[in-house]
Amino acid sequence: MITSTAPFELSETRQAEMHELYRHLHTHPELSMQETNTAAFIQRRLQALGLETFMCGGTGVVGILRNGAGPVVGYRADTDGLPMKEDTGLDFASKATGTLADGTPVPVMHGCGHDTHMTVALTAAQLLSESLDVWSGTVIFIFQPGEETAAGAKAMIEDGLWDKAPKPEIIYGQHVWPGLSGTVNISSGTAMAMADSWKITVHGRQAHGSQPEQSIDPIVLGAHMVVRLQTVVSREVHPMKSAVVTVGTFHAGLKENIIPATAEFSVNVRTFDVDVRTRVLDSLRRILHAEADASGAPAPSIEEISSFPQCYNDPASADALIGEFQAALGEDCVNVVPPVMGSEDFGLLAEALGVPSVYWMFGAYTQERLDADTPLPGNHSPYFAPDVEPTLGTGLRAALTSLLSRVGRSEAAQ
Amino acid sequence: MITSTAPFELSETRQAEMHELYRHLHTHPELSMQETNTAAFIQRRLQALGLETFMCGGTGVVGILRNGAGPVVGYRADTDGLPMKEDTGLDFASKATGTLADGTPVPVMHGCGHDTHMTVALTAAQLLSESLDVWSGTVIFIFQPGEETAAGAKAMIEDGLWDKAPKPEIIYGQHVWPGLSGTVNISSGTAMAMADSWKITVHGRQAHGSQPEQSIDPIVLGAHMVVRLQTVVSREVHPMKSAVVTVGTFHAGLKENIIPATAEFSVNVRTFDVDVRTRVLDSLRRILHAEADASGAPAPSIEEISSFPQCYNDPASADALIGEFQAALGEDCVNVVPPVMGSEDFGLLAEALGVPSVYWMFGAYTQERLDADTPLPGNHSPYFAPDVEPTLGTGLRAALTSLLSRVGRSEAAQ
Amino acid sequence: MITSTAPFELSETRQAEMHELYRHLHTHPELSMQETNTAAFIQRRLQALGLETFMCGGTGVVGILRNGAGPVVGYRADTDGLPMKEDTGLDFASKATGTLADGTPVPVMHGCGHDTHMTVALTAAQLLSESLDVWSGTVIFIFQPGEETAAGAKAMIEDGLWDKAPKPEIIYGQHVWPGLSGTVNISSGTAMAMADSWKITVHGRQAHGSQPEQSIDPIVLGAHMVVRLQTVVSREVHPMKSAVVTVGTFHAGLKENIIPATAEFSVNVRTFDVDVRTRVLDSLRRILHAEADASGAPAPSIEEISSFPQCYNDPASADALIGEFQAALGEDCVNVVPPVMGSEDFGLLAEALGVPSVYWMFGAYTQERLDADTPLPGNHSPYFAPDVEPTLGTGLRAALTSLLSRVGRSEAAQ
Amino acid sequence: MITSTAPFELSETRQAEMHELYRHLHTHPELSMQETNTAAFIQRRLQALGLETFMCGGTGVVGILRNGAGPVVGYRADTDGLPMKEDTGLDFASKATGTLADGTPVPVMHGCGHDTHMTVALTAAQLLSESLDVWSGTVIFIFQPGEETAAGAKAMIEDGLWDKAPKPEIIYGQHVWPGLSGTVNISSGTAMAMADSWKITVHGRQAHGSQPEQSIDPIVLGAHMVVRLQTVVSREVHPMKSAVVTVGTFHAGLKENIIPATAEFSVNVRTFDVDVRTRVLDSLRRILHAEADASGAPAPSIEEISSFPQCYNDPASADALIGEFQAALGEDCVNVVPPVMGSEDFGLLAEALGVPSVYWMFGAYTQERLDADTPLPGNHSPYFAPDVEPTLGTGLRAALTSLLSRVGRSEAAQ
Repeated sequence: MITSTAPFELSETRQAEMHELYRHLHTHPELSMQETNTAAFIQRRLQALGLETFMCGGTGVVGILRNGAGPVVGYRADTDGLPMKEDTGLDFASKATGTLADGTPVPVMHGCGHDTHMTVALTAAQLLSESLDVWSGTVIFIFQPGEETAAGAKAMIEDGLWDKAPKPEIIYGQHVWPGLSGTVNISSGTAMAMADSWKITVHGRQAHGSQPEQSIDPIVLGAHMVVRLQTVVSREVHPMKSAVVTVGTFHAGLKENIIPATAEFSVNVRTFDVDVRTRVLDSLRRILHAEADASGAPAPSIEEISSFPQCYNDPASADALIGEFQAALGEDCVNVVPPVMGSEDFGLLAEALGVPSVYWMFGAYTQERLDADTPLPGNHSPYFAPDVEPTLGTGLRAALTSLLSRVGRSEAAQ
Repeated sequence: MITSTAPFELSETRQAEMHELYRHLHTHPELSMQETNTAAFIQRRLQALGLETFMCGGTGVVGILRNGAGPVVGYRADTDGLPMKEDTGLDFASKATGTLADGTPVPVMHGCGHDTHMTVALTAAQLLSESLDVWSGTVIFIFQPGEETAAGAKAMIEDGLWDKAPKPEIIYGQHVWPGLSGTVNISSGTAMAMADSWKITVHGRQAHGSQPEQSIDPIVLGAHMVVRLQTVVSREVHPMKSAVVTVGTFHAGLKENIIPATAEFSVNVRTFDVDVRTRVLDSLRRILHAEADASGAPAPSIEEISSFPQCYNDPASADALIGEFQAALGEDCVNVVPPVMGSEDFGLLAEALGVPSVYWMFGAYTQERLDADTPLPGNHSPYFAPDVEPTLGTGLRAALTSLLSRVGRSEAAQ
Repeated sequence: MITSTAPFELSETRQAEMHELYRHLHTHPELSMQETNTAAFIQRRLQALGLETFMCGGTGVVGILRNGAGPVVGYRADTDGLPMKEDTGLDFASKATGTLADGTPVPVMHGCGHDTHMTVALTAAQLLSESLDVWSGTVIFIFQPGEETAAGAKAMIEDGLWDKAPKPEIIYGQHVWPGLSGTVNISSGTAMAMADSWKITVHGRQAHGSQPEQSIDPIVLGAHMVVRLQTVVSREVHPMKSAVVTVGTFHAGLKENIIPATAEFSVNVRTFDVDVRTRVLDSLRRILHAEADASGAPAPSIEEISSFPQCYNDPASADALIGEFQAALGEDCVNVVPPVMGSEDFGLLAEALGVPSVYWMFGAYTQERLDADTPLPGNHSPYFAPDVEPTLGTGLRAALTSLLSRVGRSEAAQ
Repeated sequence: MITSTAPFELSETRQAEMHELYRHLHTHPELSMQETNTAAFIQRRLQALGLETFMCGGTGVVGILRNGAGPVVGYRADTDGLPMKEDTGLDFASKATGTLADGTPVPVMHGCGHDTHMTVALTAAQLLSESLDVWSGTVIFIFQPGEETAAGAKAMIEDGLWDKAPKPEIIYGQHVWPGLSGTVNISSGTAMAMADSWKITVHGRQAHGSQPEQSIDPIVLGAHMVVRLQTVVSREVHPMKSAVVTVGTFHAGLKENIIPATAEFSVNVRTFDVDVRTRVLDSLRRILHAEADASGAPAPSIEEISSFPQCYNDPASADALIGEFQAALGEDCVNVVPPVMGSEDFGLLAEALGVPSVYWMFGAYTQERLDADTPLPGNHSPYFAPDVEPTLGTGLRAALTSLLSRVGRSEAAQ
């Protein structure tokens, strides 16, 4: 099996093409499950490379690269942007807009770096399709929509992904993160947190702003809910266990002199441990209901927005890949790390088949940048702008390393 | 001077026309300072009655009805609707929409009853123009926009209202309210509260929802501000003095898993007493800054939205009018009341000239309705739907009584 | 009937005695319903003046001064001090201590000025007993214990006060307050607020300070209750109605590294209006239970500490007395005022008999003092130290005026 | 070196004596730095066994057992009880009382199990002094006062502990905890958290309970501080780092109708990481000051109560001891665990000398008890009552194992 990606070293031309591809994708983000143009663009590229493709789960795209006998391996890249206003100042910054489910128009940005994921996957597909002699087997490229809402992996599976595509023995995937460019972070076992999101509707009673006694004030009630929720993490979770309870949105009222009838907010919960998750979600429900009682209000409506499973790296597969990475990138460039609080629906793709999967992070910032700016903007920041190189090159190398660890021809490594 | 509006008793035809006019206005509300169609409609009606008209302060309309020598008297009706979704179930309910200053599309409703004000004023103008023999002098009908935002009276004055219109010796005005239809409520001296509205922008630091430690969470900060503001009324205002601090809007965040950079909310303060107002506004500022400090956040931005002066009824003029009302409506139908917490920019129109003004309320609900439903929806409720009669008839009678108390021919009363 | 207290002008000697009496009482305060030494002192003084006396309601003392035929009139002075540390710097400041019901040792101070009340009543008894020729009838001096806890008037009535003493046609009483010395404030109708006090026991679960997840933290819960209670006044009471919700004590925990099992706090509610009282008390109960639910804690224990009725001045009697005061003190020195938020159990004494009562305030500070210090310490302040004169002289004059308005011989006024 | 404590197996008589000793100590707890009777009792026992003793750091006792040439080893037991009311129902439960620094009388209980620590140490001293042939060297028994307040170790060091006693090569110590009796938990490296405790005095302004507008309410302010402090753990600490912020006491006010001038509360902070500790303490200070600002109050007074260092087990020494424990207690009975959130000043004793130290936990509850009750009361619970055996026997065996690992005669193990 090859442990080098040497045959895939990028020419200057190929690198320029990859950078051009990245800038294009960065400029044109689309919201989760609305990645229509992105999907069409990807499908055209894959078809041009000679891959079989099919659409799946709405705006998902699958590209199959067959190259004779051998293992079947999956590689997943996610494709959606975020409802946020880009503030990077890049000359190729996004000016795109989209529309939320409730009709609100919003700016859109690749604020989570999925543009780098697509760039790497498309370039890997290109290189593999150009070097068929050094590997054999089948690679399935899964361009998954709606990662940010935990909707995409589920949608692809429900749309028959594994009825339509060959069954891989493992699925790989990776995410850009605000660490040292040129390095990867990888965990064995649990890699990322569970995430549960709820939409809460607080039911009050509307009144003129000068008549609070006629109202049940949903803003005052909602504010007390937000304040009270802080005690779940501060007092109910074991201090050596991890949990996050974030209220990411709060919306109520149209005019300062009308006490509105309702308030809406959303809660996002991160946990690693099933018991902690259960306690936190139970406490959330208990607090939300009790605070409504304290206001003499009806019970709040609680609606699930999404529920991300834990992202779990099969230990044997992860340990093997760590060795491959050390050989390909250098030992100094591979960090074996504890899990992170972020979440992913990546794991569902392999779980649906009962096969293992491995997910890792690749760094976004050069040492110069890390030294200069502190703290550097992370994912979901309006300033998130990875240094293009060695970020993309490392992502590409890591992707190829993972795939070739399964489908590489050992003689090629000689 | 006449003390009867007998010559103005409505014929069945005229009443039907008035009701038709009311339904039309109710169906077509427009947002504050955007009353373009409403203004055009009013101007056409006034011109059809033979009044001189001019536009003033953007969407304000002034109609001058000259009828020989005699006093000059002003009468003001406000014209704007509210950004709220009507839920009255009326067959002529509003389906109108509008756009807030920040571009948000909103439903619009005459939720404060300004449609009744315009109906009464237009009908009074019609009747006065048809019965020139029973009065002499000049009546100025002021159709003022933007009452809800305290922008309209100011805009008309700044646009030269009193340069363009004759100077009245007094200005009258009235408001519909959820009391017994057929009655009026009137105060001598202070009639309505001062109202100050602020827009607060909370400045935090954006981060991924799983990384609260990287953020300054503006929703948690804003919630603590809202909670802390409750202490101003509960602990800082003398219990026998009146104050209201309402947070009418709170908006932050686009996605549950992004901690946003900012939150925006609005505060509406009602007071009667200048010292109380000063203390409350000072305390608001103090709390908002200190809570930002508590989060390690920058100082919040505080921007004035509007500032309503006290609505003050000149005692001599009010007392005289109370007598006229008792004669015209019956003693049982005139309630002399303490001031209310609602606010008005009505007073500015007379204050700009240094002349007195008087403002009163006319009831919206029949006894049957009051007996049946408790509590009945008030102004700014999505269910606010006055009983058409005797509400409009009483409003009309009160308007004419006030005007004729100044311009009525005394022989007509014989 | 006399309208002058001229026959009772104090000699220099008598005034010096009165001041000495005041200093003695000030130095020796006792806690509510523990006024043993105070009662013994009063009884000795009254007996020395020749009055019949009896103990009543534990530490209450009644003195009856009979002087022939004529009306029977009651006059009440309250006798208890407060658990607070005096900080006036007076050379006769209290160093007394007492013990609360739970065994806690506390400093004691006449922080509410009941020492002035006793001084005035004892001096009035002395002067009346020395000038029997200018009046006729019976005066009942009621030295009531436990006013601060609303326990004393109830205790005296239950102990058969009106079985043992002649039935008066009216009862008078007065209170010192931090206004202009030499003046009185008096209301016709409602004079003082209702007051309800509760002791709340919050039931949590104890744990080591490092194990919050094992606890139900009663301090965090109690803090949220205190914060949430602010919304009752700020959002639930009509802004033109009056209510106060004060948490006067909060006690929990013995050591910083033990999360305690319970917290105790007390709430004191002031209202004028029965409907407001009902809503406030209902809301308190609702919030306290709901906040316990929000913590997953058992229901809190709620125990009534005291319940003061409204203090109501019979309007006819009050109006008559206002006239007498104007004649005796000068019109400028009698202020007819709206009710105050303070509370009294004074009213119970007359209510038990169905006779009227009148209560008023006499000022504590000279104009020089009012000009110099702002704001001056009020009742229940550790710095509360009335200017001895004209405070005591005015209180004495007001007391005699009220009594003589009933029992004065009209010829004496000639 | 011996790896067995076989020569020290307890006879039935010795065990009965140990249990009697335990019950005596349990019945007679004393507060931190007030352990006068306890110290006298210990000193008498040590002297009776022939040890040299000296008092140190007030109520600390040191006993030196010299047995020829060989290593010098320290063993520490802490001696103080807690201000809490015992509720175990044991027939030898404590009825003791003590007095806090501010004069408050309190019940006292060995609620942290230091009675078991003393029992084990005294029994170990007895057994070692009776079996001088199986070991050689010097053992220093340090009976340290004031562990709960972090005052005792400091006081002993400052009082010249290491000038007066021989210098040990290592110091051992242990704590009872609510795990399985018969087992020990031990960490290599960090063993226990840093703990910082502060006393906060909130400065408000006193007023009558009916006049909140005259006050700066320190209870409302303190409650907002407690609520706001929750955000430090919930929003400012990395979710994978550990921190606890406990408010263990809150005291304000003497009477429900007086708004007090001040409130006092205490905060106890636990952290493992110096950076986290710095951020948490900085945030506490920031929040406490800002909340005072929000009330318009003066800055709060912040006073350090205690500051516990991290408890750190020298890895080489801990690893060696783990092996000894496995041999002596059985592998199943030795759990190598991550650090716990509890704190200790134990580490200071060795740190002052620059020698290593090792600290571990021994379980308190039998399997039957663990199965029956859930959750079982932990340290600082009023119900904390360890099962006497095998708890004390295991603690004794662990203590002897640690000491003999250094001073045991290797031939004895043959």
